[in-house]
Amino acid sequence: MPDFTDKLSPAQPDGPTTLAHERAQSNVSVKELSEHLLSSDGFLERQARILKLIQQEPLLSKEKQQNLSRPDRFKLGLARAKLLRRLKDQHNWSHDEYKMAEYLVDDVSPYFLHLEMFITTIREQASEEQRAYWMPLIESWKIVGAYAQTELGHGSNVRGLDSPTLTASKWWNGSLGRIANHAIVVAQLLLPRPGSPDQYVSHGPHPFIVQVRDMKTHLPLDGIVVGDIGPKYGYITMDNAYMLFDHFRIPHSAMLSRYSSVDPNTGKYTKPEQPALVYGSLTYVRAQIVHHARLVLARAVTIAVRYTAIRRQFQDRDGDKRGPEMAVLDYPTVQIRILPLLATAFALHYTGLSMRSIYQNTRKDVEKGDFHSLAHMHSMSSGLKSLCTMLAADGVETCRRAMGGHGFGGGSGLIQLNNDYLSKPTVEGDNWMITQQVAAYLIKKMTAAVDSPASTATDETDAIFKEFIRNCGSRSFDAAERDMLASDRDIVKSFELRATALAYEAYEQRVHKKQSWNSLLIQLHKLSKAQSQYILVKTFFEALSTDNSLSNSTSSILWELFRLFALFTMENEGFEFFRCNAVARSDLDRLPTRVQELMSRIRPHAVNLVDSWIIPDYLLDSALGRYDGRVYEDLYNRAHRLNPLNRITFNPNYWEDEIVKGSADSGASILSKL
Amino acid sequence: MPDFTDKLSPAQPDGPTTLAHERAQSNVSVKELSEHLLSSDGFLERQARILKLIQQEPLLSKEKQQNLSRPDRFKLGLARAKLLRRLKDQHNWSHDEYKMAEYLVDDVSPYFLHLEMFITTIREQASEEQRAYWMPLIESWKIVGAYAQTELGHGSNVRGLDSPTLTASKWWNGSLGRIANHAIVVAQLLLPRPGSPDQYVSHGPHPFIVQVRDMKTHLPLDGIVVGDIGPKYGYITMDNAYMLFDHFRIPHSAMLSRYSSVDPNTGKYTKPEQPALVYGSLTYVRAQIVHHARLVLARAVTIAVRYTAIRRQFQDRDGDKRGPEMAVLDYPTVQIRILPLLATAFALHYTGLSMRSIYQNTRKDVEKGDFHSLAHMHSMSSGLKSLCTMLAADGVETCRRAMGGHGFGGGSGLIQLNNDYLSKPTVEGDNWMITQQVAAYLIKKMTAAVDSPASTATDETDAIFKEFIRNCGSRSFDAAERDMLASDRDIVKSFELRATALAYEAYEQRVHKKQSWNSLLIQLHKLSKAQSQYILVKTFFEALSTDNSLSNSTSSILWELFRLFALFTMENEGFEFFRCNAVARSDLDRLPTRVQELMSRIRPHAVNLVDSWIIPDYLLDSALGRYDGRVYEDLYNRAHRLNPLNRITFNPNYWEDEIVKGSADSGASILSKL
Repeated sequence: MPDFTDKLSPAQPDGPTTLAHERAQSNVSVKELSEHLLSSDGFLERQARILKLIQQEPLLSKEKQQNLSRPDRFKLGLARAKLLRRLKDQHNWSHDEYKMAEYLVDDVSPYFLHLEMFITTIREQASEEQRAYWMPLIESWKIVGAYAQTELGHGSNVRGLDSPTLTASKWWNGSLGRIANHAIVVAQLLLPRPGSPDQYVSHGPHPFIVQVRDMKTHLPLDGIVVGDIGPKYGYITMDNAYMLFDHFRIPHSAMLSRYSSVDPNTGKYTKPEQPALVYGSLTYVRAQIVHHARLVLARAVTIAVRYTAIRRQFQDRDGDKRGPEMAVLDYPTVQIRILPLLATAFALHYTGLSMRSIYQNTRKDVEKGDFHSLAHMHSMSSGLKSLCTMLAADGVETCRRAMGGHGFGGGSGLIQLNNDYLSKPTVEGDNWMITQQVAAYLIKKMTAAVDSPASTATDETDAIFKEFIRNCGSRSFDAAERDMLASDRDIVKSFELRATALAYEAYEQRVHKKQSWNSLLIQLHKLSKAQSQYILVKTFFEALSTDNSLSNSTSSILWELFRLFALFTMENEGFEFFRCNAVARSDLDRLPTRVQELMSRIRPHAVNLVDSWIIPDYLLDSALGRYDGRVYEDLYNRAHRLNPLNRITFNPNYWEDEIVKGSADSGASILSKL
Repeated sequence: MPDFTDKLSPAQPDGPTTLAHERAQSNVSVKELSEHLLSSDGFLERQARILKLIQQEPLLSKEKQQNLSRPDRFKLGLARAKLLRRLKDQHNWSHDEYKMAEYLVDDVSPYFLHLEMFITTIREQASEEQRAYWMPLIESWKIVGAYAQTELGHGSNVRGLDSPTLTASKWWNGSLGRIANHAIVVAQLLLPRPGSPDQYVSHGPHPFIVQVRDMKTHLPLDGIVVGDIGPKYGYITMDNAYMLFDHFRIPHSAMLSRYSSVDPNTGKYTKPEQPALVYGSLTYVRAQIVHHARLVLARAVTIAVRYTAIRRQFQDRDGDKRGPEMAVLDYPTVQIRILPLLATAFALHYTGLSMRSIYQNTRKDVEKGDFHSLAHMHSMSSGLKSLCTMLAADGVETCRRAMGGHGFGGGSGLIQLNNDYLSKPTVEGDNWMITQQVAAYLIKKMTAAVDSPASTATDETDAIFKEFIRNCGSRSFDAAERDMLASDRDIVKSFELRATALAYEAYEQRVHKKQSWNSLLIQLHKLSKAQSQYILVKTFFEALSTDNSLSNSTSSILWELFRLFALFTMENEGFEFFRCNAVARSDLDRLPTRVQELMSRIRPHAVNLVDSWIIPDYLLDSALGRYDGRVYEDLYNRAHRLNPLNRITFNPNYWEDEIVKGSADSGASILSKL
């Protein structure tokens, strides 16, 4: 319906004008930087190609999805997931191309567990005969599977099936609530005690493949209660399940028997030879999460930088009060929230890449039977998963708040991102719990280093620890004497020293003073954080130091981002660095000024820096963050033309029951939904 | 539908058993403490009485509301708001009783602006004749009004009506999108320049009362475009509006003319005498927000404490691995997230009370023509609004994460609370922006103190500043010499010193070194935070010091909470305290241990402490936090019996378009909603 507002434009300078100016004022080449970041495995080319295809599909339009109920949103999610698989068939997409489509559509797929844990478990744990039977069914999606391990009363500690308690209900198991007809069920293997067949001995949790729903009716089989657990913070299109069994019998062939098996004739149990294998797959998932965090944060920062460059608020208090108001990104109080996060996205990027290649190398070693780097990688992936998901999750919310009122609106593009991503600090090992694994590893390494400080170092950590022990009392790094902040290498050294000092303290408390593990947990968490921050800083430094392919302008802005990330982090942990003798008091006093200087040097390049992440408008789904800067036009369009609530005329009279004007429905229809 | 799961119970020890043990082990009297906290103005009695009434209303059941679409949820919100007003009529509720009902139902009412800014503006800004005409219509809800000030392109800086730009659209105006038929419209008053009637002079923003919708059809009047802005982070039942006018004429009588007016015959404008009055109403809103924060945080902490007392995970690593797993609240890494927030709820409580009484006293002074305390109160309310909403908003999310997986589920009771409360850091003055008002006030006070350090102090702040200046260089508080942490009074002194030192620094930078205001913004924000933390700590201390009515057991646990709040805060700002010479190095080193000791002393009383906030299960709406501890039964009930998604059987075959099994609908119905 046309009206007078169709012809209105925003006040000048408008978004496109502002962003054109921002883009012109910086010498950072978006082309060069984006290729440096994202072209190595064909990501950019793939993104452009897949994007073109999926934007043509009406079902993949995001315009009104925020208005749907949970059941409708789930239906939409399922319809989209089916469509993506059909597009895969039609265009003969590779796995990477299919994953790209999922990434851009940005719904958690109800088939997610089928494609990940279900297929992976069959591939890794099934015998050859089992594989031959199941894999064709799985790959053709003739059956749809899920993975049922977590229980209502137990997250990380697996209990058995058939425990006759409510808390033993399976819980949280994705894709199983409404969609899957099969599941890997992790359950205690109980076998009759030899000689006393009425008694059972547990051999611990094992994976079984179980059909849970009828292939024709899709209803649960007799003896199974299964369903979706209901609305959650995010993951609206995922059917996380509860599931209970009542005297449900499964055949001997259901037990996945690549590594362990039960002889059907004798009842004899064969143990797996190498229990460390599962350990590897958890590490893989954590490495993936670390690698993914950079794109999540880059998305939020893209929106926040573009919008705050366009948004104007107040005149300069010391200025002449003429001309337009100031862009809010020019206020240091806005910069201090957004620009360190911009730097963090880059820090996460280099560590994500490094984590992936360490994972691949370790896997090669393990396949050759060499397990020596497994513990290091497991520790590293645990600490980084904890820190990086915390940085990304908190960063998204910080960006949202930095955008003021419109950041609270549906046009921010951050609501679903925030709701979905807030699962990450908890899944695959709670962020506070898994830091124990880092600390345990470092205490073990420190114990070894203390035991023989003079022997040849076995690896990098060992070398650092031994150097620390040898210099103890008169450290080679004398923080008080020089301006550490002027040397990038010294900044890295400072993070190394602080992490090492904390590792030594933890070693003293636990090994010497025999403190209980639980009493040390807070300290151990701090140790893990310090170690992971050190890894982020060191990896960023090394990536920039070893890359000779970058132009001077790009290289120098990346160094500024490195410094901002490192010094902002240091400022937030100031007393700990000081206490560990990792930085001089005079340097700490200078930090706030130094951080502010770095921000004003980075500020002119902020828009080009976020542009370099090449996040398409379709993925951003943000009025505030769109590439062309038409913020207000888009907000108005969403409100005036797309909002279904504006199709309804309400009756505002409180003495009348009628809600929708003229409906003559006195509330019965809404009451029926309660 | 009955099934075998009906008879299942959770594993032992179950929730009720655990909470009974928790409640018995503490000597904190819930009765005494709850009356101390909440009985002074009849809150507890009123809550119990209103709760009984509203729980009988089917429309006020919260059981399935998370599953509704935005339009349905809005309909429900409107139906509920009408019902509450009818209940008010029926039971002859006072305003406090009506507000209690709204608080318990916990929907943002679509009539909210009618009852607050609309009625208040008429009451305060309308002339006697205007009041006589409008007030009966407003109080009977014969008309429904809203308040339209904020615009699409301008939050805090009001621009005029009729500006022919899109960014001048009114935006965010609550109750106006679908419900109100009238609005206060804040617009530039333009009058013809005397002598040149074609030119207009602006007399700045003024409030006008404008009818915006037809009283019969409820459709917008000609020349007005108005609607709801669409889904937001929270506030799902509020119709925040956009509104534009096209040559829309209003009569002379629309201008609210208590303080300023235009003579209809001569066109002569009369200015308001006392422009500071608006200032007072903003302060009132901020004081209300500060007072409200404690109940928000108490709600989150109630849920987190009860659930983590019941939830068990892993055996003690150093223990004998027999018996049940440990309650997660016994892990220091869980305590450090929840218990300081428990202490914070109490800190917010005493400051909220104090803020209210300072507001009332200042109002009395102002009515007597004495404005001397207005600036102090305005500064205080700005700084505390910023700090307290940040503590509460972040605290809710910290509690949610501390509950692990189930904290992400819909049974947490924190989803809507979080979504709604996240508006608070932005509304009524952005939390980062308004801290400038605190800093400007303190710099002014410090300038006066420096100018005459020897004269008699005019108020408390002046006395503190003068003492600081006189002792400068050789401060009377020699932090290095004694164990400051052992004296509660010294803890307060330490917060005072740090805030004062930062005020002095800001004064030096701005007044002496003539630094630009914007370059100092980050520093000024830190100053405001330090000052507000000082107020929280001091007010907590004074409330406990002056109250002689408490039993020893209650008093001593409140002192522990005071210490935990203060020392936890200090630890997080360690380097700043150190740098300001407000605490000794040795004390800082001891802080982590001291905080952990305090937590283990508070831990046994945690359940009784949260019980004392008497937050009803109906308000909590949380499976995890319910009073009786039946966490798992409730989670299962929500999933298995209440979740509408489980009524739908889906078709999981990707090669078939059909989504709902047997519907023969190949996606058309869901596509129609996009």
